[in-house]
Amino acid sequence: MSDESAAAFVPGHVTGFFSAHPAERAAAAGSRGAGLTLTDGVEVRVDPNGSGTTLNGEPAAIEAVETVLAELGVDGGTGDGADGDPGGEVGVAATTDLPVGAGFGVSGAAALGTALAANEAFDCGRSENELVRIAHVAEVAAGTGLGDVVAQARGGVPIRLEPGAPGYGELDGVPASARIEYVTFGELSTAEVLAGDTTALTEAGERALTALRRTPILPALMAASRTFAREAGLLVPEVAEAIEAVEEAGGEAAMAMLGRTVFALGTGLSDAGYDPAVCHTHAAGARLVDDEK
Amino acid sequence: MSDESAAAFVPGHVTGFFSAHPAERAAAAGSRGAGLTLTDGVEVRVDPNGSGTTLNGEPAAIEAVETVLAELGVDGGTGDGADGDPGGEVGVAATTDLPVGAGFGVSGAAALGTALAANEAFDCGRSENELVRIAHVAEVAAGTGLGDVVAQARGGVPIRLEPGAPGYGELDGVPASARIEYVTFGELSTAEVLAGDTTALTEAGERALTALRRTPILPALMAASRTFAREAGLLVPEVAEAIEAVEEAGGEAAMAMLGRTVFALGTGLSDAGYDPAVCHTHAAGARLVDDEK
Repeated sequence: MSDESAAAFVPGHVTGFFSAHPAERAAAAGSRGAGLTLTDGVEVRVDPNGSGTTLNGEPAAIEAVETVLAELGVDGGTGDGADGDPGGEVGVAATTDLPVGAGFGVSGAAALGTALAANEAFDCGRSENELVRIAHVAEVAAGTGLGDVVAQARGGVPIRLEPGAPGYGELDGVPASARIEYVTFGELSTAEVLAGDTTALTEAGERALTALRRTPILPALMAASRTFAREAGLLVPEVAEAIEAVEEAGGEAAMAMLGRTVFALGTGLSDAGYDPAVCHTHAAGARLVDDEK
Repeated sequence: MSDESAAAFVPGHVTGFFSAHPAERAAAAGSRGAGLTLTDGVEVRVDPNGSGTTLNGEPAAIEAVETVLAELGVDGGTGDGADGDPGGEVGVAATTDLPVGAGFGVSGAAALGTALAANEAFDCGRSENELVRIAHVAEVAAGTGLGDVVAQARGGVPIRLEPGAPGYGELDGVPASARIEYVTFGELSTAEVLAGDTTALTEAGERALTALRRTPILPALMAASRTFAREAGLLVPEVAEAIEAVEEAGGEAAMAMLGRTVFALGTGLSDAGYDPAVCHTHAAGARLVDDEK
């Protein structure tokens, strides 16, 4: 290993609509749907000489991050000497301005950022597809997300045509770039929603995907997302109110799946009198951060 | 149509090694191989009220660009009134600092940039995969390239696992980011090389791909590319000399396919006493340029 730390940046991702597609193999499981990747994201630094995982400086247990480290064989292990296990520690420091648990894909970003940065810091020699697969599988196994990782790896405005990691899934994109505003009213448990009956949700998600594929432009994505949130029964009152206020002010807004979060194009939320966070769609997708630059 | 102009940026792309894979359908044709996308690239502005195609301000005939406009149905046509043809003109202005015809994928970038910008300016409503396919097919039909377009759409350090446009091809990537230097000694005709016997070239390209997939890191890409250039019989004397000089100075360099061009990691060419252009691997791939920002 290089013994030097390495860092990766992974964009946030808000899903506008989705359908859930479980599968025997976690790499083949995932979701169809569409959303936006955001310039607000998660930076993950992996330090071979560090110790433990932190989120914004506080010790944190992120299951998908631990799984990624184990899969890459750099988790230090128990130090019992088995298969050359040195029993060392690894430091993973994730920092983000995004709200956690509010539908921005922070856990997926932490997993993918860990995969990219650990591969670099420990000279694991994996390809990008392999790292995305490892992070996707870890996220699916943890039950914290189904489609964020592949979207975050791609960047832009990803359309998930087929579920799963590279080799299984298939992506397209809406060719667009936009200022994005968002407000968050609190958390919504992804695991809880996904553990329930997802039949109606998945039917609504498939209809939304068909509509977007017919017209792959941003306003169509927002409209399909609003219809999905209503049909899937996921709208919460404060989110519904904000979406309506944005529409009355002439803008386009939708609910982030899954969080009590509203995102809007351009100045949609500001125009409606909210005090939103402001970012932009992210062109690049997840990438290593250049320490030399 | 929106009647407003739109612009796209497409990174340059140097191919280190490749194998050629013709096919009945142009969308399925292409190349396997690997290379680097570059922050030096081509900006393309499409103006619905403009007239004709220019490259760096000079009138230029770029066959792939014309094909893309025709495929999108925005080429103005002959004005004979057939199928509602208004006979209007379209302005396509491509600007780049990259040398033309020297292995940087300028024609592919012009085609892809035209597709993205024209889709935006004329509200064509195509998805990103569709636009990449249109540009790839136009480039293959023009005989000016086989793999630049799909690599430029992706960004980073693309590995072309399977040839062809989205839906046919398959991509992976080397998870790396680096400063890149390059010098160019002149043009090499892509069309001429591809029109000749490509059997030895393709065998060398397949061997290089196998080697890189085993170890997907930048130095392995450079080494595989050097071996390929030698085995495919494409090395020209001034390029061979520069690559050797970089290696003697402790660096990593290779030849851009297809041009009299050498590219090196980090400060490879400077260290060897050359006066190179300097850029960086490009994280994002082709994208619309935000006029509002």
